[in-house]
Amino acid sequence: MDAVEAANSGHPGMPMGMADAATALFTRHLKFDPSDPHWPDRDRFVLSAGHGSMLLYALLYLTGYEQPTIKDIENFRQLGSVCAGHPENFEMPGIEATTGPLGQGLAMAVGMAIAERHLNARYGNDLVDHRTFVVAGDGCLMEGINHEAVGLAGHLKLGRLIVLWDDNRITIDGSTELSRNEDVMARFAASGWHTIECDGLDADAVNRAIEESSGRARPSLIRCKTIIGYGAPDKQGTAGTHGSPLGADAIVKARTTLGWDSPPFQIPDDIRSAWRKAGERGRVARAEWHRRLEASDSKGEFLGQTEGKASDKWLKPLIAELVSSKLKVATRKASEMALEKINAAISATIGGSADLTPSNNTLTKGMELLTADNYGGRYIHYGIREFGMAAAMNGLALHGGVIPYGGTFLVFTDYARPAIRLSALQQVRVIYVMTHDSIGLGEDGPTHQPIEHLQSLRAMPGLLTFRPADAVETAECWALALGANKPSVLALSRQNLSALRTKAEKENLCARGAYRIKAAAKARKVIIIATGSEVEIAVAAAEKLEGQGIGVDVVSMPCTELFDAQDDSYRDDILPDVSNREILRVSVEAGATIGWERYTGLHGLRIGIDRFGVSAPAADAYEFFGITPDKIAERVAEQMKQRKIK
Amino acid sequence: MDAVEAANSGHPGMPMGMADAATALFTRHLKFDPSDPHWPDRDRFVLSAGHGSMLLYALLYLTGYEQPTIKDIENFRQLGSVCAGHPENFEMPGIEATTGPLGQGLAMAVGMAIAERHLNARYGNDLVDHRTFVVAGDGCLMEGINHEAVGLAGHLKLGRLIVLWDDNRITIDGSTELSRNEDVMARFAASGWHTIECDGLDADAVNRAIEESSGRARPSLIRCKTIIGYGAPDKQGTAGTHGSPLGADAIVKARTTLGWDSPPFQIPDDIRSAWRKAGERGRVARAEWHRRLEASDSKGEFLGQTEGKASDKWLKPLIAELVSSKLKVATRKASEMALEKINAAISATIGGSADLTPSNNTLTKGMELLTADNYGGRYIHYGIREFGMAAAMNGLALHGGVIPYGGTFLVFTDYARPAIRLSALQQVRVIYVMTHDSIGLGEDGPTHQPIEHLQSLRAMPGLLTFRPADAVETAECWALALGANKPSVLALSRQNLSALRTKAEKENLCARGAYRIKAAAKARKVIIIATGSEVEIAVAAAEKLEGQGIGVDVVSMPCTELFDAQDDSYRDDILPDVSNREILRVSVEAGATIGWERYTGLHGLRIGIDRFGVSAPAADAYEFFGITPDKIAERVAEQMKQRKIK
Repeated sequence: MDAVEAANSGHPGMPMGMADAATALFTRHLKFDPSDPHWPDRDRFVLSAGHGSMLLYALLYLTGYEQPTIKDIENFRQLGSVCAGHPENFEMPGIEATTGPLGQGLAMAVGMAIAERHLNARYGNDLVDHRTFVVAGDGCLMEGINHEAVGLAGHLKLGRLIVLWDDNRITIDGSTELSRNEDVMARFAASGWHTIECDGLDADAVNRAIEESSGRARPSLIRCKTIIGYGAPDKQGTAGTHGSPLGADAIVKARTTLGWDSPPFQIPDDIRSAWRKAGERGRVARAEWHRRLEASDSKGEFLGQTEGKASDKWLKPLIAELVSSKLKVATRKASEMALEKINAAISATIGGSADLTPSNNTLTKGMELLTADNYGGRYIHYGIREFGMAAAMNGLALHGGVIPYGGTFLVFTDYARPAIRLSALQQVRVIYVMTHDSIGLGEDGPTHQPIEHLQSLRAMPGLLTFRPADAVETAECWALALGANKPSVLALSRQNLSALRTKAEKENLCARGAYRIKAAAKARKVIIIATGSEVEIAVAAAEKLEGQGIGVDVVSMPCTELFDAQDDSYRDDILPDVSNREILRVSVEAGATIGWERYTGLHGLRIGIDRFGVSAPAADAYEFFGITPDKIAERVAEQMKQRKIK
Repeated sequence: MDAVEAANSGHPGMPMGMADAATALFTRHLKFDPSDPHWPDRDRFVLSAGHGSMLLYALLYLTGYEQPTIKDIENFRQLGSVCAGHPENFEMPGIEATTGPLGQGLAMAVGMAIAERHLNARYGNDLVDHRTFVVAGDGCLMEGINHEAVGLAGHLKLGRLIVLWDDNRITIDGSTELSRNEDVMARFAASGWHTIECDGLDADAVNRAIEESSGRARPSLIRCKTIIGYGAPDKQGTAGTHGSPLGADAIVKARTTLGWDSPPFQIPDDIRSAWRKAGERGRVARAEWHRRLEASDSKGEFLGQTEGKASDKWLKPLIAELVSSKLKVATRKASEMALEKINAAISATIGGSADLTPSNNTLTKGMELLTADNYGGRYIHYGIREFGMAAAMNGLALHGGVIPYGGTFLVFTDYARPAIRLSALQQVRVIYVMTHDSIGLGEDGPTHQPIEHLQSLRAMPGLLTFRPADAVETAECWALALGANKPSVLALSRQNLSALRTKAEKENLCARGAYRIKAAAKARKVIIIATGSEVEIAVAAAEKLEGQGIGVDVVSMPCTELFDAQDDSYRDDILPDVSNREILRVSVEAGATIGWERYTGLHGLRIGIDRFGVSAPAADAYEFFGITPDKIAERVAEQMKQRKIK
């Protein structure tokens, strides 16, 4: 309450209501060692109700983490403080996940718990044997994402996942009765969870509930009956304590009620040392773990996998194969071909799909399913849960030791978008295999045809959006995604695409984001920039124009973000900064044109689709939208005339 | 199966498995009249499992709708056919909602059922007394959105909502056991639903289940046990029948099994006339309804409300008030001020918030809550269910007679994005009141600060994104949103903004999308284009530059979509098409800069934020990102020097 008061902003209610439950968890159950926050076999704790960040900061401080200091806490919510408004995993160790967008902490914890069981199956109890704890509020449990996460966890029987529900019966608008009549316990039980309730204001009761939930073959929900803002007389139990400072008067009264006579930001020595002692509980366990690791035959492999480096030794042989075979395949199929090699070369990958396995081509030969009976498998049927899959993948990546990839249709990145944003914000290596990436998917029509999605994803900071043009580019983009320290979206075609890259190159050309895939034969008057399935159309259009005596470069731009990061001289070589009266720049992408002015300039030509799609066979849809070699050549010639380019 | 075969694309499995259940519903329960598909008191039917579109097309044809014709069905999934791959509400009457993105049909149906109860409360049983039926598949019931919709429907005790669950135990990846262990019936019961199961292949059994579910005070889930692809021997019951044509052989066998000896697209006369007779069941009811309407005192009001015209007589007096009071208020507060007038003037509005009522300022004085005990209320506590709220609003708007608006934070448009897309695709008037629209929200930090959201929303076809700069613009934008035949997002500030529009204008200036809010005093060398909270910053920067002898226009651009739709001469007047060496164009928006090249040209200056935000007080965050009058003036002067503008 003091930190929120000092910041004049924040959420005191949840930390006060859940303080006793958190005390039980952190002093008696959670396995951790503040001196090594990255210890791989630590228990994971996720504060899904991220607005209660001060609870977590207090716990980290009290148990003896290097950060936050009391100074940091005094600067809660100020520019540069590691104690941000919501917990940010990149601000300091001990924050396992960035939370705040409700429901996602719980859903990421499901991913962490999957990673734990998977690595346990591979390395045994000696090296991997920990639990995942979550504190979730009513918000978390109303969001749709929680349904997907709860369903997945129940299905996979993640017994080492324990969720403490802060049941304070209050939301921002008032009583939970304003918007919910659900029997939450019955709902979790319906998904195969163990459920138990306790007085959340009684640390002993919470302790017993955690004990009772331990060692089970099902995940557990502990309903902690609490009072929001507990300890602040007059105010506790009201929505007013949720997201506003209590105010000086209420704080004085709360000090009296709670018997707390220290001034703000001062912790009495006896209390601090009791907490620090609790923080040292894990030291012995960690030392023992290190002894077991040293003695283990799997030590090297385990550490390698934990470190997360992804080999790219599969890439060159695959490209050699592809340039010689010149296959005309969909890039989703090319992705499968890459995955066959990747999954063989990198044992850390864990694949999956939100129930579009045969469409996304994400399951490679010989991959076992990861199920409740076989946690050692490497492929997850996530069900029709795009958001749940994405959030679980964030959790898998945050846990470490695994590299998650998962598929759905590109249009359904919308369903997963809040989790994709958290992939980007947390800078975790999650690879989204998003097939059916344009009107080229054909008959399924407007609801399934992405239009605005590519540009919307490119607008998101910290995310690499790849749209490869053929099988070689697909392999290159896979290598870049695996090598990145951030998330990637691979936008892949349903329809077959011609082989454009037919000779082996020394470099990964896609690493530059864009490159000249066809140089003008005649004096260059036009540069066509295209992505993915439109590159072969652009090349065909260019050939028509060359036939008319017009020199045309074609630039394949599989990743705008990487191109934007190149130095001036490279960018200038590919897209010279000259007037559109000298060289006409043209973009071709079967999607929204907003943003393409960045590459074409205002007087360039942007060929794309600024309306919703149509239900029709792919070729008809392309014809309808004028994205064909003939139409493009025609429009380019017309624009050259208008712009008086000779 | 014949239509899918002809298209060589589509989903035969669901229509074949649910044909009997649909027959029971359409021939014995659904109240409709094909001769007047817009009859306001018809029952609503939503095919939430939209991939089974052929089932709906068949039903519409058989029961005697004008469309589709047999020809249309023969052209299933072809360019220009009203029989699109997924049902599109804009293709033909009888399709109540565009479905395909799973779970959303069910969630829209919840909105329709709310609208029905609300209008019933206002107009009585004589005029409004109908039901809402849904066919949902396992996909619909795994998506997170269904949890939100089910929770909302249970809470609001929508007894007139009946969901038929096509329980065929198959998804695309195979058995539902691959990804789900949930007891679905228990889960619905936990949310206060009535549940019942029946043999979905027995029309009489389905009939009895619907009868048993009717007249209850709770929504009903009818579990129809079915077989996917029923009737196709060898193939039925497998994922193979879900999304692919059966193939010629299997079709021959299915004809034998089903005893169907007509060739494709030929319906025997006796069968067609039996169906047509079923289609005429509603004729008498509709005639009686019209008699009641004619006799009703509320006729005019009812028809007016159904027509949906929104008065703007509230606008001028409000603007007069605002230009004289010159209040410095947050635009979220200005929105509340507008809503006070709107809700008084337009009785069709139904407001709400996804549990951010006190932040979104969406509840105006005297508004009663719409609850299970008071359907006549006009404000809905949607709970922490952004997606559920948005989808329900789509349903409210599709039902007609009401104008829904609802709030959350702009960053959480991500959670609702799939439904916003369906608002846009269906062109329904849903108004999204999205507050806390930038880093200006301050301390809550990166998880809560929108960066890419404005541009991502602008990239979506068919959606108006408004970002007003002060109270007057907010009122104008509200008027435009209410007058639009499409959805709108209002992006509103948390922080207070100065009054910029301080005199009354004849026209709604925001209707042009952008306009000159400050004309250069000295010779114009710079045009600064800004939106929302950045307009006053731009004006202050302009004044600094004018002080240095540089003439600066400031353009407020509350809606890029509307500006893009203006004629050349208007656009040229605001943003003359001259080189950035003559006039420097500068954009200022506290968000992603991608796309702003459309207005600044390549050599203009784009001031924005291309990374995630920071947790800090708003003023510190603006300072950190250099979005202040001083920094902007400095960067403009520097760029002018570089571009040699004198």
